[in-house]
Amino acid sequence: MPTPVCLENDLTAACKAIRPLDPAKLQQAWNRIDSLTKPQGSLGRLEEIAARLMTIYNQGQAIMGLEETGPAAGIPQGPDPARIFTVAGDHGVVAEGINAAPQEVTRQQVVNFLNGGGGINALCAAAGAELRIVDAGAVGVFSPHPLLLDRKIRQGTDNFAKGPAMRREECLLALHHGLELARDAANEHCRCLGIGEMGIGNTTPSAALFCAWLRLSPEEASGPGAGIPPIGLAGKVEVIRKSLALHAETIASKDPVAVLAALGGFEIAVMAGIILGGASLNLPVLIDGFIATAAFVAARELAPEVTEYCFFSHASAESGHALVMEKIGQRPYLDFGLRLGEGTGAALLLPFLRAAASMYTRMATFDSAKVSRVP
Amino acid sequence: MPTPVCLENDLTAACKAIRPLDPAKLQQAWNRIDSLTKPQGSLGRLEEIAARLMTIYNQGQAIMGLEETGPAAGIPQGPDPARIFTVAGDHGVVAEGINAAPQEVTRQQVVNFLNGGGGINALCAAAGAELRIVDAGAVGVFSPHPLLLDRKIRQGTDNFAKGPAMRREECLLALHHGLELARDAANEHCRCLGIGEMGIGNTTPSAALFCAWLRLSPEEASGPGAGIPPIGLAGKVEVIRKSLALHAETIASKDPVAVLAALGGFEIAVMAGIILGGASLNLPVLIDGFIATAAFVAARELAPEVTEYCFFSHASAESGHALVMEKIGQRPYLDFGLRLGEGTGAALLLPFLRAAASMYTRMATFDSAKVSRVP
Repeated sequence: MPTPVCLENDLTAACKAIRPLDPAKLQQAWNRIDSLTKPQGSLGRLEEIAARLMTIYNQGQAIMGLEETGPAAGIPQGPDPARIFTVAGDHGVVAEGINAAPQEVTRQQVVNFLNGGGGINALCAAAGAELRIVDAGAVGVFSPHPLLLDRKIRQGTDNFAKGPAMRREECLLALHHGLELARDAANEHCRCLGIGEMGIGNTTPSAALFCAWLRLSPEEASGPGAGIPPIGLAGKVEVIRKSLALHAETIASKDPVAVLAALGGFEIAVMAGIILGGASLNLPVLIDGFIATAAFVAARELAPEVTEYCFFSHASAESGHALVMEKIGQRPYLDFGLRLGEGTGAALLLPFLRAAASMYTRMATFDSAKVSRVP
Repeated sequence: MPTPVCLENDLTAACKAIRPLDPAKLQQAWNRIDSLTKPQGSLGRLEEIAARLMTIYNQGQAIMGLEETGPAAGIPQGPDPARIFTVAGDHGVVAEGINAAPQEVTRQQVVNFLNGGGGINALCAAAGAELRIVDAGAVGVFSPHPLLLDRKIRQGTDNFAKGPAMRREECLLALHHGLELARDAANEHCRCLGIGEMGIGNTTPSAALFCAWLRLSPEEASGPGAGIPPIGLAGKVEVIRKSLALHAETIASKDPVAVLAALGGFEIAVMAGIILGGASLNLPVLIDGFIATAAFVAARELAPEVTEYCFFSHASAESGHALVMEKIGQRPYLDFGLRLGEGTGAALLLPFLRAAASMYTRMATFDSAKVSRVP
């Protein structure tokens, strides 16, 4: 295992490698989009996806200069292959009674995913995305499986209502695992990453992180998750309020790793690492719902430039998500009332990146097709 | 060519063949969806798509009784292969100056589609949909092409501000072509149809049809289309108002074919036929934007039962569309600011039907996967 100093250095290097999108290249992408045979802007948000996506790719390799006669030959143009990570972790804070489903469901669902029976299996199969199940820290043990990546820190975090959820080294290791998962995917020629999760109780650490970093109140950040918990929604709010008070000094320190270690979860830290790793390697990252967005906010605290590499898939039905989106200045692409997690929203967004890339690379221009422009 | 009496009889028979969805079968589909390993309702609108889609398919063949151990072998489960029709037609009403782009763009764009350079080509390629270009009545002639289906009635309708856009026989023939296109697709084992169009000026007949059938005012129904026309938006509104007055007697007759002949277009009538044909054959139909919705309203006038077979892809950026959706009681699935037409919205919705079918057929149940239910 790398030493904590190595982990800190690795994280710092990855964050420094994330570049803001080049405005000139973004403009170049828009120029091409506006030359295509359609009224300007008539493909709406698909055009915005295309501009950003192709600029991200262009920072990795030259693909902007498509000839008028068609796409440059031999250069991969779209988000395929895409890999979605469903990261599992358990949470000590379930001892407070904040979860409707029993904790063992995390392990049961991981087994279900490995057997191909989960929602994320069905949606990845439909979307043509590779799926990897990452055990970041579920309670229980799993037999080896081709889909399973064992990155278990330990069996569940500590109860953050009583103390930090994890030690700093654990948090750094989880972030490192995420960076490495992104690097491995890039080495295996993936062109798009997606993140989602499974972890009973994990809307509670996510809500706490939104309070710490986005100054939401516990009431604003708390929703029913998978169902109203035994202590009720008011009880969940109270647990978060108490925990924020307990960790007030850490939160005030503005040290992103310390805050994430205090209030986060293993799966949240691994997802944050995947986001940072993906952005550092010029890969777009599909963000799932409420909990994946908590990982995004953690990544953004470490490197604000990640935002332009992230595609927020959907407006979650979990209350609090809409306000979070407002605070981070994002408008999610889909509004389907999803609240499953697992990466299902990310899987649903993937076809839009494919469509955007196809528009950019396949469509003729007004000049090449000899179509009259709207005056 | 079939006689007008034959065409009327064929249309009547197709309309009669459209059955309302069986409530018992719909409930059976919901029962399965609620047994899958996810909190009930947590896949939101995808579940509604799945329930309706699988009920539609079940009316054609038995696929509901999936065994607990997995999908029934050998039975096609999803919307593939899907075929999207981009139907082209021109409009005599352009003589009034209601179009921003010149009429020749219809022909130019059809050629562009045949050469693979249109938005619909790019989005069908990305979505894995078959594309067919139908010439229902564009001005100009086209060389034979494998993608082109020649169903030309004649080169453009008459100016409906001066008289009926088409004769009743022409309208019936266009509807018949649509029915036949759906039948051919079904015979070639298509499992999903989509409709879109190309026709300079065709937001104007669409707006007129919405006024006639949904009692919208010309102001409410009129938007800029591909761009503000030479006579301005107020001029376009005035042309529609004048035309509605001219055809008031026909509109009052409540004869759907007569109203469609008076105010519609060849591509709109063909699309209406595809909707009716698809529904009569238990095929889901993906409805594109503003103009495709005018075809839907025409189809609904002929057979109200078509509604449950239709999936409204997106909220069009064309003003008037939102009110139309409200009037027909539909909430479109995507809100991407699209206003291109061609079937591009239909192509973007197809992956959701695939995801919904995959969810329905691939996911494990709580019992089969031994996952604890949320109490």
